[in-house]
Amino acid sequence: MTSSALKALALALGCGFLLAQAGPGVPPPVSNGQSGHRQTLDGLRDAGLAGERAFEILERITSAGPRLTGSPEAAAAVGLSAALMKELGFADVHTEPVEVGRWVRGGVAEADIAPSGGRGRVPLAVCALGGSVGTPGRGITAPVVEVTSLEELNGPGRPFEGRIVFFNRPMDRRLTDPFSAYGRAADQRVAGASAAARRGAVAVLVRSLTFRQDRNPHTGMLRYEPDAPKVPAAAVSTSDADVLSGLIKSEKNVRVSLRLDCRDLGRTASANVVGELTGAELPDEVILLGGHLDSWDLGAGAHDDGAGCAAALEALGLIADLGLRLRRTIRVVLFMDEEFGGTGGRAYARAPQRKGERHLLAAESDRGGFMPVALAVGSRESGIRDKIAAYEDFFRQLGVSAIVPGGGGVDVAPLVERGAAPASVILNSQAYFDVHHSALDVVSSVHPRELEFQAVILAALAYILAQEGK
Amino acid sequence: MTSSALKALALALGCGFLLAQAGPGVPPPVSNGQSGHRQTLDGLRDAGLAGERAFEILERITSAGPRLTGSPEAAAAVGLSAALMKELGFADVHTEPVEVGRWVRGGVAEADIAPSGGRGRVPLAVCALGGSVGTPGRGITAPVVEVTSLEELNGPGRPFEGRIVFFNRPMDRRLTDPFSAYGRAADQRVAGASAAARRGAVAVLVRSLTFRQDRNPHTGMLRYEPDAPKVPAAAVSTSDADVLSGLIKSEKNVRVSLRLDCRDLGRTASANVVGELTGAELPDEVILLGGHLDSWDLGAGAHDDGAGCAAALEALGLIADLGLRLRRTIRVVLFMDEEFGGTGGRAYARAPQRKGERHLLAAESDRGGFMPVALAVGSRESGIRDKIAAYEDFFRQLGVSAIVPGGGGVDVAPLVERGAAPASVILNSQAYFDVHHSALDVVSSVHPRELEFQAVILAALAYILAQEGK
Repeated sequence: MTSSALKALALALGCGFLLAQAGPGVPPPVSNGQSGHRQTLDGLRDAGLAGERAFEILERITSAGPRLTGSPEAAAAVGLSAALMKELGFADVHTEPVEVGRWVRGGVAEADIAPSGGRGRVPLAVCALGGSVGTPGRGITAPVVEVTSLEELNGPGRPFEGRIVFFNRPMDRRLTDPFSAYGRAADQRVAGASAAARRGAVAVLVRSLTFRQDRNPHTGMLRYEPDAPKVPAAAVSTSDADVLSGLIKSEKNVRVSLRLDCRDLGRTASANVVGELTGAELPDEVILLGGHLDSWDLGAGAHDDGAGCAAALEALGLIADLGLRLRRTIRVVLFMDEEFGGTGGRAYARAPQRKGERHLLAAESDRGGFMPVALAVGSRESGIRDKIAAYEDFFRQLGVSAIVPGGGGVDVAPLVERGAAPASVILNSQAYFDVHHSALDVVSSVHPRELEFQAVILAALAYILAQEGK
Repeated sequence: MTSSALKALALALGCGFLLAQAGPGVPPPVSNGQSGHRQTLDGLRDAGLAGERAFEILERITSAGPRLTGSPEAAAAVGLSAALMKELGFADVHTEPVEVGRWVRGGVAEADIAPSGGRGRVPLAVCALGGSVGTPGRGITAPVVEVTSLEELNGPGRPFEGRIVFFNRPMDRRLTDPFSAYGRAADQRVAGASAAARRGAVAVLVRSLTFRQDRNPHTGMLRYEPDAPKVPAAAVSTSDADVLSGLIKSEKNVRVSLRLDCRDLGRTASANVVGELTGAELPDEVILLGGHLDSWDLGAGAHDDGAGCAAALEALGLIADLGLRLRRTIRVVLFMDEEFGGTGGRAYARAPQRKGERHLLAAESDRGGFMPVALAVGSRESGIRDKIAAYEDFFRQLGVSAIVPGGGGVDVAPLVERGAAPASVILNSQAYFDVHHSALDVVSSVHPRELEFQAVILAALAYILAQEGK
């Protein structure tokens, strides 16, 4: 069609505004001189977006089942991922040992508000927090005290001795960044059990960390302080947290019964999975793309972090398909045990294989499979970011509205400490905590095309840094 | 918590990068002098994001049923929307007449590939295109010819006389902007029937306009040329289009039977719905926020365009809740009949009530209920855009990575011709055409919080322009 015919059609279709823009809804790129690798990057983009291979990889990874650290499913995922890497054409595919803890949820997670007056028993949808001790088999029944902060535990005149402490501060919906809202509410989940135990509490319930109002409890790691008694801790769904809070306001001496048979089974052997395209000139200079292979066990760990693993694998797969010679090594590492604190990341950094290697970039994808909105890379005065920024127009069409300092994550933190530049693709996260750490984190909640955008961005990021500079 | 404790917690949670940024995943705003209305805008944001009222409004609108132009459901939506406007505190709530066409889908939309050799009948999932004539009751059975462009109809040596023409050019997945991919494939649907009829074809099938591979046909308007015979036209699902194309390649003389009992019922009375907060100083200067109340009938018209209507209503509702004095008028118009060509938009612009009014801005929300990524407003040298750009840091936190020229749509085009500045919130559209014009366009496909972001942006846009300047 002619340009004017296209314009008339666009208006008839109600999409006249498409004429004023380019990219996935973002402003038209300003050419800044079309740096050297643009044609290759365009090829990576076309090959990626033409299909949905990242999503197919995600389906393969999640087929292992929920990959709780130390579980048989996590072990299956290690083998399956190594096979996937070989299929994708990676070199030097191997596993590296990680000694991890093994905590099991068990089969019982029950809570209810005890009957009172004319009111019957009210069941609460709960799940054990990761790492929690279980209750005695008969459960724990105790009066409940509601608080909204750790600080409140130290206030005067509140009895916590022998009580169940109920942490009920919601994520602040007014914060536009869901990660900020999560970060500001998560102290209850991470530190609440030990803080309450120090004041004599016998168990804790924590409001699930999500904006949604529903009956899905959201799990996540807790951290017991070494010098505090260990008390059982469970997440309660947001809807049930509101029910419990309402009854506490309207009744005296609300009592809750809690039964959990989760327990710790000690240390066990696990592994990181490593594969690469080896650099022809500077093989010991490494561009690392990582995600974590372990997941929580209530869902399938699709967004967290099957998607991150799949994006990293697909990124290197796209580069492998090009069949081009790489100057530096691009490596994918699927880390074990991010969710319980990052033993895999530390093991990788300390492994004997690292000797003589230098990691230029350590990218971590652990924000799900949503649409990219920005790219965080390097520190504030990073020369690496300048190399990437030279291709800003390429990244902009993929949704990257800005290339900013930042990035990284639990798994790559030890590499960043050793001088690697961190990186992460920043995604639209408004729906992330709807599913995060819950039974809703399943493959059908990931959009295949949005996930592919992340993979293409990672591929371009890695390719540029593998080829450019001295 | 202290800043260092927050940092340690953030790292433990795997969200260390949140420390480097603000907003919903975008870079930290650069303060540009905090223009005068920032406190009010922050209040609009907090009030909006604290709840999900835009989504509740969407549920109310879609409760009328699929709102096909001229249908009883569209009429019900007119009454229901006027009531909603009054509940939200709008003034001068009224309807304005629009004479529209009434086309009905009927109860039959069947197609199958006729048996051949040892192969049995293969059913195809189809739906009539909007405006199509029906087939005779016995259907149309004819050989099929596959083409991928309108141009191919004019090529030499291809027989179309007495054939069913099958337009099978997919949306180009490599285009990062789905609206571009849609715009470049939609000529088949809009103009295919008349172009094929001119070459003697007896019916057309058109591949559904979506990136998804599934069995949902996607409808949409066709346009019959006055001087061409009118032949029936149906959309076929992408999966079935591939089946049909495969058989055409492997067999000779593939024949398809098509039965449609859709038909045109002539003209009927309908209406736009109008409500406002009237300006105290300059009541005849109007800031318009619009969406279209009509929808396609296969789904609920949730993204298209219940979401746009809900965002506009919620935007003005948020401003009404503030109880502040407005200098200019902010008006919401829910237009009728966008999908069949925009009679509602033209009727509004020509209505006697417009006499003496001046529309400064005509914003149209017709891109669904997804997360905002940019704001398109005004022409290239727009003073209006400068007023908005003074609050760039406010908009940035809401996902608006850029404030660019553009915006508008079918319904407000007549106002833009008369000098109003167009505007639209640009959204992440990667999933839009998954559901667009199909049975999948239902309320559960809209994310309540993402929709609320759009409403807050519209509220801020309208509020700034209602208050600022001479």
